[in-house]
Amino acid sequence: MTETWQEAMAVSGRTARRRVLRVTVPDAAADRATASARADLLAAEEPLGIRVDGTALTLTMRTPGDDVELAAGFLVGEAIVRGRDDIAGMKVCDGTSCGHLDHTDDEIGNIVDVTLAPGVAVSTGARRNFMTTSACGVCGKTSIDDICVLPQAPLSGDETAFAPAMLASLPGKLRAAQRVFSSTGGLHAAGLFNAAGELLAIREDVGRHNAVDKIVGWAVLQDKLPLAGCTLLVSGRASFELVQKAVLAGIPLLAAVSAPSSLAADLAEEAGLTLVGFLRGQSMNVYSGPHRVAIPA
Amino acid sequence: MTETWQEAMAVSGRTARRRVLRVTVPDAAADRATASARADLLAAEEPLGIRVDGTALTLTMRTPGDDVELAAGFLVGEAIVRGRDDIAGMKVCDGTSCGHLDHTDDEIGNIVDVTLAPGVAVSTGARRNFMTTSACGVCGKTSIDDICVLPQAPLSGDETAFAPAMLASLPGKLRAAQRVFSSTGGLHAAGLFNAAGELLAIREDVGRHNAVDKIVGWAVLQDKLPLAGCTLLVSGRASFELVQKAVLAGIPLLAAVSAPSSLAADLAEEAGLTLVGFLRGQSMNVYSGPHRVAIPA
Repeated sequence: MTETWQEAMAVSGRTARRRVLRVTVPDAAADRATASARADLLAAEEPLGIRVDGTALTLTMRTPGDDVELAAGFLVGEAIVRGRDDIAGMKVCDGTSCGHLDHTDDEIGNIVDVTLAPGVAVSTGARRNFMTTSACGVCGKTSIDDICVLPQAPLSGDETAFAPAMLASLPGKLRAAQRVFSSTGGLHAAGLFNAAGELLAIREDVGRHNAVDKIVGWAVLQDKLPLAGCTLLVSGRASFELVQKAVLAGIPLLAAVSAPSSLAADLAEEAGLTLVGFLRGQSMNVYSGPHRVAIPA
Repeated sequence: MTETWQEAMAVSGRTARRRVLRVTVPDAAADRATASARADLLAAEEPLGIRVDGTALTLTMRTPGDDVELAAGFLVGEAIVRGRDDIAGMKVCDGTSCGHLDHTDDEIGNIVDVTLAPGVAVSTGARRNFMTTSACGVCGKTSIDDICVLPQAPLSGDETAFAPAMLASLPGKLRAAQRVFSSTGGLHAAGLFNAAGELLAIREDVGRHNAVDKIVGWAVLQDKLPLAGCTLLVSGRASFELVQKAVLAGIPLLAAVSAPSSLAADLAEEAGLTLVGFLRGQSMNVYSGPHRVAIPA
């Protein structure tokens, strides 16, 4: 269940070269500035459409690469797919197979077609996160209950103990593996670690949620769900959405380098997820599920 | 057209107090850790539904506060509203006025009802950014053209010159005004400045796009669109989505403390927006529209 970051980073097309004018103000008080043209590497951002059983389901702006994993992980995070057996097939649109005749170069490679296994379907409930349908659901129901599709006590059986010193070591490991980040400065990262603190997979994207979807998709396609005993570390903050994705993947501990939102902490508490925030240097804040953080006596 | 940040920060409910276990690892090599319980302020995150002429349009996870502005700015960013006159009325659902009888406490205050002026409507094209409809649009058209609803050369008439020294001063001004950020560490900020570098408005949110929608909404409700001669500064990176929102609000210069994506740079170039990234310390990168950055001879 290991993968080197070199393998994870091997897919091309994640950066794009653009011309840039570098402007420097040597003295803020003086009316002077220098400018020089140079090339700069930017994180690539392109739309990815996900089609399920022939019907368009969602569109996300993402960094190209690992698109099949992204689609698979997205479906897990929407509670449509619970394991590899729920997916009959996935393929990236190559411009000839999807029934549309007038493709441009931009679309080819930017659509993933998913075929669900017999008996698996996109239910109305599973669509509650999608903009045009979820809005209706807010009024007349409790907001959190309506947005959230988590099963009852999904993580109660996972009693893995995580050592604080191991957790404190994770941000450094994630940064060390973020080769693309060091060249563009514009990518969020998500890393999956086992209870010993070993990096299992890392993914990067312009969207934090996409990076997590790619991690979960990597796992589901290898039939590794639920990800019991694992830690998911994200480079930024922890939102409600990321808590939901972690729980649906069976991950017992979500850690963020920055702050969680109030709703992230509330949902984590409700779902039995251990939520760690401000994981920096030698310290961290535990917002929920502290029983899994093993404080030595 | 000025507003103090104290006014902008005055709305309550933007933070929530939660119990947290603070864990410190004094020595990474040793199997020791200390833990203490304390209270922590988190950025509040709650769903906001936006209804237009009685029909649910979208749902966003946002930090409560400035919700009417958020809804107004969102509609500008979707090219549905072009000015204050396009909006006949807006109100926050108080649990009695929206025709639903079984409200819970969670929903009250979390839905904004918008009534458009006669002749203004949510067109099919304007919905292309919404998940369930936009996906269909990707296949069969050029991706950028299809996702984007920008008018032709929207900013070509704005020839404001921005001084590099003034631009370099903006991140410090934004940080100084971010009182909520300093207490929670979890909020994105967007600030609107005039060409002299004076702060006109600041908004914060768990979502970067929401902070920008709140700024644009503040402006449209005061009938200040287009925001000619202004700079919009965002605390993180610049995505395709933010470029689109800036252009539709008539803002000629978008600056980001971190990196833009490739698509952000491409769209900015196409729309004639000046896009500045890595605005830090005494330097910056200009990715498009360098003619507006006034390099002293």
